[in-house]
Amino acid sequence: MTTITGKFLREDLQIGQLADHVGQRAQLRGAVHGLRDLGGVVFLTLRKGDGVVQCVCPPELVPQALCQEATVKLTGAVRQEPRAPRGVELAVEAVEILSLPARPMPVPISKDKLNLKLDTELALRPLTVRNLRQRAVFRIQAVIAGAFRTYLDSQNFTEVHTPKIVSAGAEGGSNIFRLSYFGRKAFLAQSPQFYKQTMVGSLERVYEVAPVFRAEKHATARHLNEYTSLDCEMGYIDSFYDLLELEAGFLRHCMEALKERCGRELRYLGVVVPEIGEIPAVPFEEAKRLASEAYSRPIRDPFDLEPEEEHLIGRYWKERTGSDFVFVTHYPSKKRPFYAMDDPADPRYTLSFDLLFRGVEITTGGQRIHDYAQQVEKMVKRGMDPAEFTDFLMIHQHGMPPHGGMGIGLERLTMQLCGLDNVRHACLFPRDIHRLTP
Amino acid sequence: MTTITGKFLREDLQIGQLADHVGQRAQLRGAVHGLRDLGGVVFLTLRKGDGVVQCVCPPELVPQALCQEATVKLTGAVRQEPRAPRGVELAVEAVEILSLPARPMPVPISKDKLNLKLDTELALRPLTVRNLRQRAVFRIQAVIAGAFRTYLDSQNFTEVHTPKIVSAGAEGGSNIFRLSYFGRKAFLAQSPQFYKQTMVGSLERVYEVAPVFRAEKHATARHLNEYTSLDCEMGYIDSFYDLLELEAGFLRHCMEALKERCGRELRYLGVVVPEIGEIPAVPFEEAKRLASEAYSRPIRDPFDLEPEEEHLIGRYWKERTGSDFVFVTHYPSKKRPFYAMDDPADPRYTLSFDLLFRGVEITTGGQRIHDYAQQVEKMVKRGMDPAEFTDFLMIHQHGMPPHGGMGIGLERLTMQLCGLDNVRHACLFPRDIHRLTP
Repeated sequence: MTTITGKFLREDLQIGQLADHVGQRAQLRGAVHGLRDLGGVVFLTLRKGDGVVQCVCPPELVPQALCQEATVKLTGAVRQEPRAPRGVELAVEAVEILSLPARPMPVPISKDKLNLKLDTELALRPLTVRNLRQRAVFRIQAVIAGAFRTYLDSQNFTEVHTPKIVSAGAEGGSNIFRLSYFGRKAFLAQSPQFYKQTMVGSLERVYEVAPVFRAEKHATARHLNEYTSLDCEMGYIDSFYDLLELEAGFLRHCMEALKERCGRELRYLGVVVPEIGEIPAVPFEEAKRLASEAYSRPIRDPFDLEPEEEHLIGRYWKERTGSDFVFVTHYPSKKRPFYAMDDPADPRYTLSFDLLFRGVEITTGGQRIHDYAQQVEKMVKRGMDPAEFTDFLMIHQHGMPPHGGMGIGLERLTMQLCGLDNVRHACLFPRDIHRLTP
Repeated sequence: MTTITGKFLREDLQIGQLADHVGQRAQLRGAVHGLRDLGGVVFLTLRKGDGVVQCVCPPELVPQALCQEATVKLTGAVRQEPRAPRGVELAVEAVEILSLPARPMPVPISKDKLNLKLDTELALRPLTVRNLRQRAVFRIQAVIAGAFRTYLDSQNFTEVHTPKIVSAGAEGGSNIFRLSYFGRKAFLAQSPQFYKQTMVGSLERVYEVAPVFRAEKHATARHLNEYTSLDCEMGYIDSFYDLLELEAGFLRHCMEALKERCGRELRYLGVVVPEIGEIPAVPFEEAKRLASEAYSRPIRDPFDLEPEEEHLIGRYWKERTGSDFVFVTHYPSKKRPFYAMDDPADPRYTLSFDLLFRGVEITTGGQRIHDYAQQVEKMVKRGMDPAEFTDFLMIHQHGMPPHGGMGIGLERLTMQLCGLDNVRHACLFPRDIHRLTP
């Protein structure tokens, strides 16, 4: 019998701790990110989870086999070095090899930019994500998702976990993956919509961070067939504007968290974190018309926004208010799902919104129907059979508060924040119509 | 244009805030959990996300239509009342109905225990989860998942999001769901195993909280076909015991978080939070033999643990050390997946472990093979074709540190902590061989 105490202490230092250990001896374990033999001295760039550090080795300490992507344990003295990236370096006194690669890297991962074609980059993603620039995107993404949870926790929301194998789609349409579930027809959830509404009846305010699945056949720079959705749903709203305020509150918290915890990654990528001041919220028709007039672009589809229109609406409000964000509200009813609440003032429109960030939609949300008769009526008007939605309608039958919520695409938000030109750069292992691996 | 400021302030109070507002007026919005008309006075139990509160209404203020599961806005004075559950009550001065149910509740959800058959309970889960006892389980579950993340964040782990639609299973065997992905054969991920190992090569320490899918055909009280896995993977371990220490550290942090944030729910369910002191770690063969001898139960399967054996092993170490937890280490190699590292001292066993909590396995983990030649050799020995795992083997080929990790079943951990007799009680909307709805 061995005894486990849970006192999880490591002698190793993280890169971020080195500055506090100048003049002391330290032990570091990491991967050899780069290796430069200058004859009299060998410069080893050690990569750890939170950064890299320059390590100076006397040549006689460097084992013959040492190479890029070997993993090593280094001991030495931490000293100040103003020319080194973090102002510190390790004067190495011992090198122990922990593991060696079987083959050299096929791409120069220690370069600043890899400049690979997208297909190549994604095919080699298990390796290219060791590149510091690529890795920084995913460190930033982790902080965004964490900020979503901590903000909602602070607002009395509770996290839930709802099933991804479902018997019916929430978003309708044909973009749903089918599977056989022990001989029965089943689907992959397009969103946690029914379940998060259900949980509002119990926990009042809920959120979920989980994958959603969309079998969309078009391959664009902004669509993924599987993505991470930051979902929340809130009971007892006064109006759907409460949801916009909630999202603005999250965004402000998120940007602060990024500045606090990802300063290095943001600088590395040259990302300017937007200031969240006042965000304009503009009705769909007005937003569309103003952008059309300002940039002389005729309106083609009166019921939806084309990507170029989103771009122009974002530009219009950026130029006039300085905001990187603009809420577009009151989307046409025919383009919104059956659970969206129509605007009592004009039922051709819904009490719903999208959020555009630097001209790209990153959120869809709105108030939902809470009244049973109203929900059944809207379904019947759309030719849907309420009998197919018994489990969902159970909550309306037995009482629901006025409520609403939203879904934020984590990869889209990451892409726009980091200024990436393709959402695949903001997804570790993207799934699209052509891509099921790695 | 409307201006959104993100100053998300509500006049409403949460139940937990009432004790600080004694003597003041308050506004509360919630659902009518219970309603008792005593003639001269009406007692309304108001349910909000974080609890219930007794509200005393003069009969003339109570609208005729008011009923259980109506949602209301109440205003009144907060006053001390030692006989009320939280020591406070609301002396109601105005009742505004926000919504009314279309039909009465089919089950008495305001009772302490519902005493429904499991099938009935799960079929009505959208409603039964409004019951306080049921809801408490999921409030506890949210704190467990949150504690997993905050503990790992504190240990320099980074959250990742990896695909659930995959081209090959990580765990092997037949228990994998198949789907058609734009005409190609695809599967639902049984675990994020390959991806979290991959990310160790980049971020060194990673975790993911996400659904996993197991097409197991047996219907037991402890299996779900979709569950939430708390997964983590860590580079630069000294030995696989580092992983046990990491898990013990998480458990200690988790139990503290539960005591701090779920005191009410724990008391409500009568849950005693285990003390995490020293946890025994016992090799598989020894654990099996000692329990067999102590309780005179012959060993039938020398390579695996039957549920009754897990129960007896838990009992054995609880009796001898007082620990509710016991790690069983060194599982037989033939029962562990191809990526598990064999024990160099005896390759019939692996450097792996399960954690039993009150006699039920809640975690599987272990050290993984990091050397390319060694991984290929083990695959070939098992009759596997390495060519089918090119993307996974890419990381071994190009250098990986010694590493390992674990997966913790969130619903299992919740079930054992709350003393539930079926894992379905710890899953909001369970999926099993017979159940695809609600």
